[in-house]
Amino acid sequence: MTQPSLIYAPRREFERALALPVDRIRRTEVFAALARLNALYMIKRAGSGHIGSSFSSLELVSWILLNGLRREPGGRSFQDVYFSSKGHDAPGLYSALIGLGMLDFDLLHRLRKLDGLPGHPDVGTPHIPTNTGSLGMGISKARGMILADRLRGGDRRVYVLTGDGELQEGQFWESLQPSANRGLHELTVIVDHNKLQSDTWVEKVSRLGDLERKLEAFGWEVERIDGHDMKAIDRALMPRASQTEPRIVVADTVKGRGVSFMEEFGKEDCFYKFHSGAPSNEHYLRAAEEILGAANRLLAGAGAQPLTLEREPFPTAVETTGMQRMVAAYSRALLREAERNPRIVALDGDLLLDTGLAPFAERFPDRLFECGIAEQDMVSQAGGMALSGLLPIVHSFACFLTPRANEQIYNNSTERTKVIYVGSLAGLVPGGPGHSHQSVRDIACMGAMPGMVCVEPCCEAEVELLVDFVINRTTESTYLRLVTPPCRVPYELPAGYRLELGRGVALTEGRDAVVLGYGPVLLAEAWKAAELLARDGVSLKVVDFPWLNRVDRAWLASCVSGCRRVFTLDNHYVTGGQGQMLAAAMASTLPPGVEGVTSFGVEEIPHCGRNDEVLRAHRLDAESLRERIREALEA
Amino acid sequence: MTQPSLIYAPRREFERALALPVDRIRRTEVFAALARLNALYMIKRAGSGHIGSSFSSLELVSWILLNGLRREPGGRSFQDVYFSSKGHDAPGLYSALIGLGMLDFDLLHRLRKLDGLPGHPDVGTPHIPTNTGSLGMGISKARGMILADRLRGGDRRVYVLTGDGELQEGQFWESLQPSANRGLHELTVIVDHNKLQSDTWVEKVSRLGDLERKLEAFGWEVERIDGHDMKAIDRALMPRASQTEPRIVVADTVKGRGVSFMEEFGKEDCFYKFHSGAPSNEHYLRAAEEILGAANRLLAGAGAQPLTLEREPFPTAVETTGMQRMVAAYSRALLREAERNPRIVALDGDLLLDTGLAPFAERFPDRLFECGIAEQDMVSQAGGMALSGLLPIVHSFACFLTPRANEQIYNNSTERTKVIYVGSLAGLVPGGPGHSHQSVRDIACMGAMPGMVCVEPCCEAEVELLVDFVINRTTESTYLRLVTPPCRVPYELPAGYRLELGRGVALTEGRDAVVLGYGPVLLAEAWKAAELLARDGVSLKVVDFPWLNRVDRAWLASCVSGCRRVFTLDNHYVTGGQGQMLAAAMASTLPPGVEGVTSFGVEEIPHCGRNDEVLRAHRLDAESLRERIREALEA
Repeated sequence: MTQPSLIYAPRREFERALALPVDRIRRTEVFAALARLNALYMIKRAGSGHIGSSFSSLELVSWILLNGLRREPGGRSFQDVYFSSKGHDAPGLYSALIGLGMLDFDLLHRLRKLDGLPGHPDVGTPHIPTNTGSLGMGISKARGMILADRLRGGDRRVYVLTGDGELQEGQFWESLQPSANRGLHELTVIVDHNKLQSDTWVEKVSRLGDLERKLEAFGWEVERIDGHDMKAIDRALMPRASQTEPRIVVADTVKGRGVSFMEEFGKEDCFYKFHSGAPSNEHYLRAAEEILGAANRLLAGAGAQPLTLEREPFPTAVETTGMQRMVAAYSRALLREAERNPRIVALDGDLLLDTGLAPFAERFPDRLFECGIAEQDMVSQAGGMALSGLLPIVHSFACFLTPRANEQIYNNSTERTKVIYVGSLAGLVPGGPGHSHQSVRDIACMGAMPGMVCVEPCCEAEVELLVDFVINRTTESTYLRLVTPPCRVPYELPAGYRLELGRGVALTEGRDAVVLGYGPVLLAEAWKAAELLARDGVSLKVVDFPWLNRVDRAWLASCVSGCRRVFTLDNHYVTGGQGQMLAAAMASTLPPGVEGVTSFGVEEIPHCGRNDEVLRAHRLDAESLRERIREALEA
Repeated sequence: MTQPSLIYAPRREFERALALPVDRIRRTEVFAALARLNALYMIKRAGSGHIGSSFSSLELVSWILLNGLRREPGGRSFQDVYFSSKGHDAPGLYSALIGLGMLDFDLLHRLRKLDGLPGHPDVGTPHIPTNTGSLGMGISKARGMILADRLRGGDRRVYVLTGDGELQEGQFWESLQPSANRGLHELTVIVDHNKLQSDTWVEKVSRLGDLERKLEAFGWEVERIDGHDMKAIDRALMPRASQTEPRIVVADTVKGRGVSFMEEFGKEDCFYKFHSGAPSNEHYLRAAEEILGAANRLLAGAGAQPLTLEREPFPTAVETTGMQRMVAAYSRALLREAERNPRIVALDGDLLLDTGLAPFAERFPDRLFECGIAEQDMVSQAGGMALSGLLPIVHSFACFLTPRANEQIYNNSTERTKVIYVGSLAGLVPGGPGHSHQSVRDIACMGAMPGMVCVEPCCEAEVELLVDFVINRTTESTYLRLVTPPCRVPYELPAGYRLELGRGVALTEGRDAVVLGYGPVLLAEAWKAAELLARDGVSLKVVDFPWLNRVDRAWLASCVSGCRRVFTLDNHYVTGGQGQMLAAAMASTLPPGVEGVTSFGVEEIPHCGRNDEVLRAHRLDAESLRERIREALEA
């Protein structure tokens, strides 16, 4: 008996499927089944990725790639345009493009790896026309392409796939009317209406109302179809010469389509388990078997032999025992504070699980406001609550909360009320989702808000202290920045450590140089760098400085005095990060003995890849820091 | 014969109107007419303010204040809530609140003055429940208030006024469905449907389509009325006990209502002249006469005597001869470049006049894309155009463009295409509109975008150079920051000055200290400070440094070497501004002879007032700079 293993369909099986002597409906069905099998492989091998919406959209995507898009002469690239506005469904799209031979087959093994296929689409990958992953931008982007074509004489058809949860985003509605006003007949939008957003039913999060009526009211031609019925897809998406308006096809689909236990989600179920993340080994094997069975049945129906597959061993599981989790610690601390303070309410943007709000939601259902994927509305709503005597705590991923609702946060700030913003998924890692999700500009976006204190904890114990600070110990609004992945934290805060605004705490002592930073990801690297440097005879002081936009200058001077060189370390762009603020403070009068300040941080578009790959690519891992610090000291 | 003068109705005339023995319809009509007269006075006296929408909304606002809102016991404050989401109509609202005795009467003379009434509403003013002026936030704010009430046992009615141009903003649509889903019966929204947005007809800018059908499709109860017919207003806005859904009343109004020549705007007319800004003396006199006549006719109809008015002299006109205009210079330079480069297209967010695009629009109508008040859609559309071979230049006010569309700008940046963003109305002045329009966070918002060069010119000649730079001399995306008000520029760029990325140019020589800054507003103050300091025996070098987020460190070191102290000067928050970037660069190794760097800039919520008042309040005027520089040198 062979060991359980990962399976995938090799290139020759796609070639066989594409050459089947059947009509395009059948051929596309077989192709979609193969692409589904390989998408599952890619996600399991990568250790993460969006299964649910890859599967709900694969019939649609396969039809568009095989039949909707015209090819350039030679057939190696598309003349027309398809992209997914949500971008989550990238594994399905990649799998199909690989199956078509339009991406190197080897990339099947390189999802979410450095120089592989990013977690969300990027124009650096062939046949990806635009970057997505931030929701709601698709129709606007498409209109830009079409209006450019009209000006330059192009005539591309543009197909855009959107999610249904995505329709909560204001930009989607903002983009509808101008598209109708411009008579954008070149555009066909397909809503992958799988009725589940990241956590649960769209109906539960923020109902869409009468969707077809709404879309029609904006002047679009609307059609509704079964998004897994290839005949219906073919009828609805085949271009029509007489088209004068933009069209939107609401495709009823099933999230997790093709795998029975991924399709099953009861009306009363709480959290859908297959939105993102890799399935367990057992789930993988059951899912692969079901998908393979369906593919072979379709092949048999076409009079063809079953698939001959390739195998790969299961990836080794990542050991997380003993790691610290900032979001879980936040979750516990919030619950404790909320028990004491009835003014606390929590607002969530469809990320209850990811932002640690599930326990709060269960304990205080009346004080949890689920806002859906509508960050601007959420933030202004929080502003209204703060004006009305509540203490609102607003949650989302840092990459969405701080730029998408930036003007709304500023508006709240100018009212001098107190609102707490909690941005998780902050910083370079996890590196798998790619730059749409790697929040490395949020300190710049939030730091200049008037009356806003920005903080980030470096360990679970500091989460506790900072939650106490933002809720009980300041009257100002605050931004609490949280790293999401579990972190191995090699240091401990000194016994008796108490927070003081603008002051940090040494995690190691040292006399040659000092590095100031924040958060568990880079402070752990700095700690390890200090150990490496000790072997080189360099004594490095590592300081946890949790204040991202405030500093007590006198404390800073005394902290760094006597160290020849000061380093700052940002899990963020250097521009607008904590380091620039600290360096500027030191430039006022360089503390005694200090020759200068060097700032480390992100300096280019974040790389996508495994966390260790990404840190190394940005030269922010311990070994790179050791080298960079040595270079600076020897300069 | 008396000299022509400004006129206003004193408090006693409002008291008389409110005591008229007529029904509430008539009384409200008279009140609205008086409020209109005084709003005209306030705007003319202030020298700016939004006349058109103050006048279109005054019947609605008067009815709500007099009849819609319940009062707290004692009658000195409201139990219920009214606010304008657009906020432009503040002069009308202030005038009504003053007429009701709910604001000090003296504030009638202090619109847009320091410690007076800000150009857009601020909670610092009594009876202003929330800050507005950034569009589209109103319903979200209102929902927050109502949900807070439900949690805390309040039962306020909430009335929100919106514009019709405002409905182009995505957040408006984002906020509709959740309000319906929550059964927000406490909420009544009124659309001041005057059919004109800042520049011209809403229909021409970005048609709203079938508005009632759209609103109904989102689950709201919709009614349409004549917004100047007090009986219709009374019927539509009187609370209904049986209400279970949120209501929206589309009120057909006339922009500039009550003044014949402000109401007249033909379907083919290009630019509406009375959106903002003060009327000419002649226009003022004709308008006042018409409004006064109407008020007296209403009084006569109620059997009452005509108004007895107070008079004030006309304000002295501001002399602008010889001043430089950055936006006009931009307008000319853009036109010249566009003649040469057919790839250039311009996108506008309903600010053709204010962003200097009118000549471009006339010369290249096919290359001008009017996007309406929909910054996110505009920016993503530009991204699609850049991906399709065009060179898009995106225009709006800096305060809206850079925070509202921040995530969209980042998304474009990660595609490594070239997009040019032009943000006018940058910085502290004009100080009249207030903090919603004073853009002092935009460098922070834009500086950390990957591949983005941010620049600001200090005079018309440098506008030319920078337009050439952003279009022809860089492959990177750029942000061109422009001051809007005419500026008296006391310096000239040296003959033969050429731009070099990251390098500045000395406007005055000096040896004791050096100040680096950008833009005509603060460099003019620095220049004047240098003259003042010369009298004190201090020699100050003033350097124009137009690069907001890049610096050539070697040039910087040589520029400041030998000066004991370096000052940076930001027309922006210190946090995230140019100064912090420069100071951090100098902290790497303090240049020879330099003892330290001091950064001047904005450090609190921008004050509203006359430009000179605002600069002084922030201690950024020449006299304050002189003092601050002396203090620092003597420390």
